[in-house]
Amino acid sequence: MLRNIKLTIEYDGTYFKGWQIQTNGARTVQGEIEAALKEIFKKAIRLIGSGRTDSGVHALGQVAHFKTASSMPLKEIRGALNANIPTDVAVIKAEEATPNFHAQYSAKSKTYRYTILNREARGARDRHTCLFYPYTLNLRRMRAEAKALIGRKDFRSFQASDPLRKEKGTVRTVKALTIKKQGDYIHVDITADGFLYKMVRNIVGTLLEAGSGRLPKGSIRQILAKKNRAFAATTAKPHGLTLVRVEY
Amino acid sequence: MLRNIKLTIEYDGTYFKGWQIQTNGARTVQGEIEAALKEIFKKAIRLIGSGRTDSGVHALGQVAHFKTASSMPLKEIRGALNANIPTDVAVIKAEEATPNFHAQYSAKSKTYRYTILNREARGARDRHTCLFYPYTLNLRRMRAEAKALIGRKDFRSFQASDPLRKEKGTVRTVKALTIKKQGDYIHVDITADGFLYKMVRNIVGTLLEAGSGRLPKGSIRQILAKKNRAFAATTAKPHGLTLVRVEY
Repeated sequence: MLRNIKLTIEYDGTYFKGWQIQTNGARTVQGEIEAALKEIFKKAIRLIGSGRTDSGVHALGQVAHFKTASSMPLKEIRGALNANIPTDVAVIKAEEATPNFHAQYSAKSKTYRYTILNREARGARDRHTCLFYPYTLNLRRMRAEAKALIGRKDFRSFQASDPLRKEKGTVRTVKALTIKKQGDYIHVDITADGFLYKMVRNIVGTLLEAGSGRLPKGSIRQILAKKNRAFAATTAKPHGLTLVRVEY
Repeated sequence: MLRNIKLTIEYDGTYFKGWQIQTNGARTVQGEIEAALKEIFKKAIRLIGSGRTDSGVHALGQVAHFKTASSMPLKEIRGALNANIPTDVAVIKAEEATPNFHAQYSAKSKTYRYTILNREARGARDRHTCLFYPYTLNLRRMRAEAKALIGRKDFRSFQASDPLRKEKGTVRTVKALTIKKQGDYIHVDITADGFLYKMVRNIVGTLLEAGSGRLPKGSIRQILAKKNRAFAATTAKPHGLTLVRVEY
């Protein structure tokens, strides 16, 4: 019987064209790890992730699984992978999963963090992992608007159209959405049972409009009700976004 | 009369050969900012930093000053600098200083943070700003050992020899040294009235030896008493180190 191996993966998305392997030879996280699996196990192995992340988006806890007949110990699999993938990806855990564990279909929820540097001058040290936003933000207003997003809702207004995806409906459950200030940094943490394409970045883009006073009170509730992407704000840039964890 | 302008500077030290301008054309932070000053004010201007940082070391709050006869408003100076320096450096504040303010000689204390990723597997997203250390660390032991470093002491044992520097003695006052755990990350924060060459990195290297149990209890007190670099541990790598702020 084949073993089913669950990997927890961290990456710096800056120089990747996202998670998903592409036929055009673009550098992707899945592509790099599959190349290492082939090197280690001497055969082509498909790695299935919990879901895609876009070009520039990071992960501290992406999850993926693959099947193998090899009896290599888990620590050795992790070590061999980390020795064979570039330094901007890391396998932080390798675990034995039940035969029917599926990184995408077994996922119960995911948590993303979007980080904003909110001050007058741009940053430098952490420029690849936060969005620089120099305008005054009213956090109380952002938190009040965000309340409308919590619970089981139709998030069609926050979904980007994507010809590659066939979404099974646009209703999702946002379990938690918190906005925390830490010095000049603002962290927006969102947990949901699933996310539509670019949903976090569309939500953050709209929260920034609300926080800077460019949207009247109650706007997010109204945008949700429209069920039309045209009413939400511009998509926030990818580099502020990190997939923090996937819960099973 | 010339104005004296105080700058607060952030940088990602990864691709710099440190702060200090070099005659060999190496890429340095001081060199990049002086080039921008020349571009903006159309003349060579000397920028004086609070002190050097080594190749690979970062800053969130380095301070420097320069003199100018220009009447350009402060926000414009900051904006023009940020437009003329590369993205891995940022001027986060430009302030009017008193005529005798000197970034180095007026400094009362500096605070450095050294960050360690302490888990079995290496990281990826933040690999340029922390040291990966996979061995178990006893934080209680590290904190107990660190107590010997607090106060006015002769830190000769923690000073690297440096032909470029003429240190005025080796006695310094460490005002605070804290060790905080945040998930898999450990932050060592040190505030002192001044630091000898590579002092923070030599202290951290020695604290890691103590924390991993390779040094007997009381070692740091003994190493200090030796007043000889040979007794302290290996210098911790530069990329875990960030100059957080300079107090005046």
